[in-house]
Amino acid sequence: MSMNLFGGVEAGGTKFVCAIGTGPDDLITERFPTTTPEETLSRVIGFFKRQAGDKLQAVGIASFGPVDLDPASAAFGHITSTPKAGWSNCDLVGPVKSALGVPIGFDTDVNAAALGEAELGAGRGLSDLLYLTVGTGIGGGALVGGRVVHGLVHPEMGHIRIPHDWARDPYPGTCTFHGDCFEGLACGPAMKARWGAPAEELAPDHPAWPLEAHYLALGIANLALTISPKRVILGGGVPHQSHVFASVRTEFLRLLNGYVRHPAVVERIDEYIVPPELGDRSGVLGALLLGRRAVGSAHSMG
Amino acid sequence: MSMNLFGGVEAGGTKFVCAIGTGPDDLITERFPTTTPEETLSRVIGFFKRQAGDKLQAVGIASFGPVDLDPASAAFGHITSTPKAGWSNCDLVGPVKSALGVPIGFDTDVNAAALGEAELGAGRGLSDLLYLTVGTGIGGGALVGGRVVHGLVHPEMGHIRIPHDWARDPYPGTCTFHGDCFEGLACGPAMKARWGAPAEELAPDHPAWPLEAHYLALGIANLALTISPKRVILGGGVPHQSHVFASVRTEFLRLLNGYVRHPAVVERIDEYIVPPELGDRSGVLGALLLGRRAVGSAHSMG
Repeated sequence: MSMNLFGGVEAGGTKFVCAIGTGPDDLITERFPTTTPEETLSRVIGFFKRQAGDKLQAVGIASFGPVDLDPASAAFGHITSTPKAGWSNCDLVGPVKSALGVPIGFDTDVNAAALGEAELGAGRGLSDLLYLTVGTGIGGGALVGGRVVHGLVHPEMGHIRIPHDWARDPYPGTCTFHGDCFEGLACGPAMKARWGAPAEELAPDHPAWPLEAHYLALGIANLALTISPKRVILGGGVPHQSHVFASVRTEFLRLLNGYVRHPAVVERIDEYIVPPELGDRSGVLGALLLGRRAVGSAHSMG
Repeated sequence: MSMNLFGGVEAGGTKFVCAIGTGPDDLITERFPTTTPEETLSRVIGFFKRQAGDKLQAVGIASFGPVDLDPASAAFGHITSTPKAGWSNCDLVGPVKSALGVPIGFDTDVNAAALGEAELGAGRGLSDLLYLTVGTGIGGGALVGGRVVHGLVHPEMGHIRIPHDWARDPYPGTCTFHGDCFEGLACGPAMKARWGAPAEELAPDHPAWPLEAHYLALGIANLALTISPKRVILGGGVPHQSHVFASVRTEFLRLLNGYVRHPAVVERIDEYIVPPELGDRSGVLGALLLGRRAVGSAHSMG
């Protein structure tokens, strides 16, 4: 491997993925379950010490959230108010930085995935991009004008409200905060609770799918009307079946009803709403890029 | 007046506002109704020739839409697909530029208003800002990471879908494209059609207001969860009455239900959702800033 190595960590509520290398084709990865912060972070640190030693230039951490992304905040680099036991107010950046002694990049898992797809995947060359993942929950990250969206905190796109036709779908939603928000209606656990089987076991002609495509299209339409992305990358386990994409695209156009007339939408919808090119590695590869950027910004800051 | 003058045009579907000067305290303005493109643009050109002559450095145009903001497009500077008779595919930038011979800045009316408030008004110093106007229609503009959001086309925030409780509110919505989208449910004409009187004539204790505050809070919550603004500026005629702000803030917090815990939201909601400081001049002052920026970018491009 080359002399300069970058590390990436995708910190999820269920599992952590660590990677080290120079890019998507030159990468060593390791996955382990998320246990306590102490044990999990010590496995992260061990992985990089073992695999890179003093060739490590920087590490990027892409985390489940909510997280604190404000470099001026005392809680920068922390997970803040997660319901996940033991992880509230947990400092991710501090322990990794002090153990490894390298610059650490930090962002949400979905922002990192958006960045990964923008630089290496389905969003290459695009300044404005929406990345949405639909699995255990729903999360969204975005690039606007070439930059990852942070703002006051960071986007929480899974929690937007969408119309819920109770007559067609009496299921009240899974979200402990909002009930039938976008995530509450359309995430994997909502499908399982509503239909009695997980998404991957529901046949393509199951009535679950038109409803799911409707909800996904509603969510995507709202997000796209807000930030006007040049492409929408839809990842995660739920839309994994290819028929889902066709239904979501059709329903998205039906909902817009001709209002957005750009040819990228009305003539090339198959290239407008697409699966991630990096598969389930968008997040960890985005984390690697966060690490690479952390070196750049450390240099540029002096 | 000073030697270097900048012009701004707020191009609305009902009226045009032209302004010339050096800033909000040194400004000559003129308003006239929107008639045909030829007549209206010729009044715009006449205003600047008369008021500035050869001291004019640049003009910014902030237009109703949809518009083409892509400098690489043949239709840059045009209104594209408006239902307003005579204005579809109308070139705004071309005629003004060739008649006045100065650089022209161009953006949507709401992006310009966001920019105006960010530089001169309620968003001063904030990199991430949502500007929403609720009147004849609903439009939103935003700054993300210090830049105005363009993307593929530009945001069309008024057309997001929000939950519509038909039992509580059987009104089907005004939007000719989407029926009961955000604009369809919550714009001024929707209030008038639903209650038989325009918003400004409905007393503070009229049942119209809790419903309107609910819709505005739903829309703002969706937009805020998508771009995470540091402040939300709510303008336009409908929320003009001060009691509306109090209800919208309360309903916004109720809908988020503790999910976003940043102190700017949970401790300082009165400073988080605010009226525009520039009143009804956000758009035209933003247009003036677009003009000033057009000079900067013309210089930097050569």
